[in-house]
Amino acid sequence: MTQQRWQKLMEWPLVAASVAFLVAYSWEVLGDLEGRDAIAVESVIWATWALFVVDYLVRLFLAEHRGHWFFAHLFDLAVVVLPILRPLRLLRLVTILAVLQRTAGRAFRGRVVIYAAGASVLLVYLAALAVLDAERGHGGAIQTFPEALWWAFVTITTVGYGDYIPVTGTGQLVAVGVMVGGISLIGAVTATFASWIVEKVNEANEEDHAATKAHIDQVMAELREIKALVGRE
Amino acid sequence: MTQQRWQKLMEWPLVAASVAFLVAYSWEVLGDLEGRDAIAVESVIWATWALFVVDYLVRLFLAEHRGHWFFAHLFDLAVVVLPILRPLRLLRLVTILAVLQRTAGRAFRGRVVIYAAGASVLLVYLAALAVLDAERGHGGAIQTFPEALWWAFVTITTVGYGDYIPVTGTGQLVAVGVMVGGISLIGAVTATFASWIVEKVNEANEEDHAATKAHIDQVMAELREIKALVGRE
Amino acid sequence: MTQQRWQKLMEWPLVAASVAFLVAYSWEVLGDLEGRDAIAVESVIWATWALFVVDYLVRLFLAEHRGHWFFAHLFDLAVVVLPILRPLRLLRLVTILAVLQRTAGRAFRGRVVIYAAGASVLLVYLAALAVLDAERGHGGAIQTFPEALWWAFVTITTVGYGDYIPVTGTGQLVAVGVMVGGISLIGAVTATFASWIVEKVNEANEEDHAATKAHIDQVMAELREIKALVGRE
Amino acid sequence: MTQQRWQKLMEWPLVAASVAFLVAYSWEVLGDLEGRDAIAVESVIWATWALFVVDYLVRLFLAEHRGHWFFAHLFDLAVVVLPILRPLRLLRLVTILAVLQRTAGRAFRGRVVIYAAGASVLLVYLAALAVLDAERGHGGAIQTFPEALWWAFVTITTVGYGDYIPVTGTGQLVAVGVMVGGISLIGAVTATFASWIVEKVNEANEEDHAATKAHIDQVMAELREIKALVGRE
Repeated sequence: MTQQRWQKLMEWPLVAASVAFLVAYSWEVLGDLEGRDAIAVESVIWATWALFVVDYLVRLFLAEHRGHWFFAHLFDLAVVVLPILRPLRLLRLVTILAVLQRTAGRAFRGRVVIYAAGASVLLVYLAALAVLDAERGHGGAIQTFPEALWWAFVTITTVGYGDYIPVTGTGQLVAVGVMVGGISLIGAVTATFASWIVEKVNEANEEDHAATKAHIDQVMAELREIKALVGRE
Repeated sequence: MTQQRWQKLMEWPLVAASVAFLVAYSWEVLGDLEGRDAIAVESVIWATWALFVVDYLVRLFLAEHRGHWFFAHLFDLAVVVLPILRPLRLLRLVTILAVLQRTAGRAFRGRVVIYAAGASVLLVYLAALAVLDAERGHGGAIQTFPEALWWAFVTITTVGYGDYIPVTGTGQLVAVGVMVGGISLIGAVTATFASWIVEKVNEANEEDHAATKAHIDQVMAELREIKALVGRE
Repeated sequence: MTQQRWQKLMEWPLVAASVAFLVAYSWEVLGDLEGRDAIAVESVIWATWALFVVDYLVRLFLAEHRGHWFFAHLFDLAVVVLPILRPLRLLRLVTILAVLQRTAGRAFRGRVVIYAAGASVLLVYLAALAVLDAERGHGGAIQTFPEALWWAFVTITTVGYGDYIPVTGTGQLVAVGVMVGGISLIGAVTATFASWIVEKVNEANEEDHAATKAHIDQVMAELREIKALVGRE
Repeated sequence: MTQQRWQKLMEWPLVAASVAFLVAYSWEVLGDLEGRDAIAVESVIWATWALFVVDYLVRLFLAEHRGHWFFAHLFDLAVVVLPILRPLRLLRLVTILAVLQRTAGRAFRGRVVIYAAGASVLLVYLAALAVLDAERGHGGAIQTFPEALWWAFVTITTVGYGDYIPVTGTGQLVAVGVMVGGISLIGAVTATFASWIVEKVNEANEEDHAATKAHIDQVMAELREIKALVGRE
């Protein structure tokens, strides 16, 4: 079995596992579950984890150059190790939206915008869940989900008022992840703007299209005809 | 009636409605109105809202592909749902300023700068009004308009001192909007700078203009003449 | 007298006035002057202001299209109205440094870097002076120059800890200026990086230089020679 | 001896000195050493400093144009003066990783990403050490290494909650360095994104490759052949 076939085969199971993880984790944290419910939800979370681990190991096994593949797919390893990154797989669904777009240039930029927006919303939601899970009952200011959500927005935009701050080690690790996500978000927004402005300014500045290889080919065809005419004499 | 004609027809009424909303909302919040005055101002706000709703529905009705138009104009829907976005329509007036500019490349970048500056000033002013409206009398630190304005500046630039922080749900929603606006502002400023520097560096680096299709056309004309000369013999 | 000649004539007097303002304002704020010393220093500040006003009015008078000039030089008006912007004139000296640079592309980017660095340092120093001048003795946290300098750094980088925050109206106006400067600084740094990376990647990607008008001119010369040869027969 | 040969010769000793400094400084700060241990560690730090000073002076001596070299290598001077910058030399090792990459364009961008990531991690770690060294026992909030690390992350991402703030002069100097590093980090992330998007959009937009000098050379060869044919008759 090739790696390509395996990836195609696993596409939808992994998306389903991501949704299952998202629902189970939301339920566990927001419902503050205990007893039998907690065990049921936990087993769903562990099952999605097992699926991602199996997928990672099979892809590593099927890779042509395993060492190279390992370094080129460190993010996939992070997805396996850090459960919070798992739902980012849902961003793959963005490719479906690409059908709605027309020209290629716009489609690519549109995809970057949807990716950045989607990743930000997922990151804010998941970070709020994770920080609430870590902080609840540890004496910090973040004790309810709305507070955790507000904290996540204030952090991902790098505003950082300081009214809600994680105080546990786990909460601070989540915070560092959100901050890094925030800088990437600023980067993506700015870069999309920049490429759009550069393109518009280029369009306005260039009076004429550059000569292409196709134009030169026309010239060559004409020359060969002349050579034939001259040589025939 | 086509969509184009409707949009041309509604251009000035919508600008007028935006101004009316801006004045009425400022008056309501800053004057802290009650009784008959409040009712008068509120009816102006509802009237501008009705006009925007009618405009949105007519444009949706007149659109060729309604589903496509709906997804391509989500911002217009947001303008109808979120009253605070309504005065952004005034940014349309920027196009009038474009006449003052000369070369196309500069004009486009100039327009981005004016848009970013205008949108920031409008956003800061409206967010200050909205946050004051939401926070006044709810125990938070923001209780006067100067405080709300200072808060809006500190937030849109993502500085976030933390001396004034909204504590109500509505106030925090406004804050999230301002933060998103702040990131877009940083993006627009940076992108304008970047396109300017890239252009200047390109100008300095290129010693000669690229060959264009027009140059190749000259070569082709010459070749056809030679072919005629050769063929005639 | 033309505008060009006037500007050349005033170049060094304005630089001198900027230095004089910088020294006088630093002395006034840092020395916390009173009595006769304060009057002496104040008169230097007013004299530099008068020089800038005269320069502005003469240039406005000498401009070919006064209305157009007025809108194109709003920053010059701001320099006259806001004394804090006056020392930015010293950035003009950066052009002298351009002689040290070699290739044009690098020189331009180098100038942007030196401008951004110089403007940031001047802005931080002047904002610290202005905020100290406004805040001292008004109950806020900023009471000494080191505190004001620390506040200015924390604000221009949009970190915004919130340990020192201006509480007076004037101090907050200065803060808004520093925040706007901070966003421009981030923009300039990012744009310089971006143009550098874009150039490097372009260099690496293009295997061959694009055909230029000069190459086409060579082809045309060859064709004319052939036409002469063919036509002669 | 030429400068090139000296630099090649010193490459590995300087990397080793950087590692030695990193280990010694970590040990000194984290172990809160006293007595004989402190003296041993201090002498390692001074030895690495001496090596960097010697390297700097020899390179300055061997430079062709000493004045020019001095201004073009101000960062090298800063490395000598500010011990905290010394371990940045380890970033040179990134060039080894470049072998793993394939195409040139990607490799350059990949190098920027690894540089930015590596420099950020080193900066956060070293700033946490330096700020802890400066602040411990001076009444500020930063008293342990985890607190210092958390502060460094909050500062480099320009979030700035304000829960941990340096209060000593040295600590605030380190903070300014981290803030400047943070802005550069945002710049590098954004610029990498921007160059990537610009390239992708360009790829999608251009239907045909531009005509290159090589294409024109083909045309010229053909023309010379025709001229020979025509002239021969």
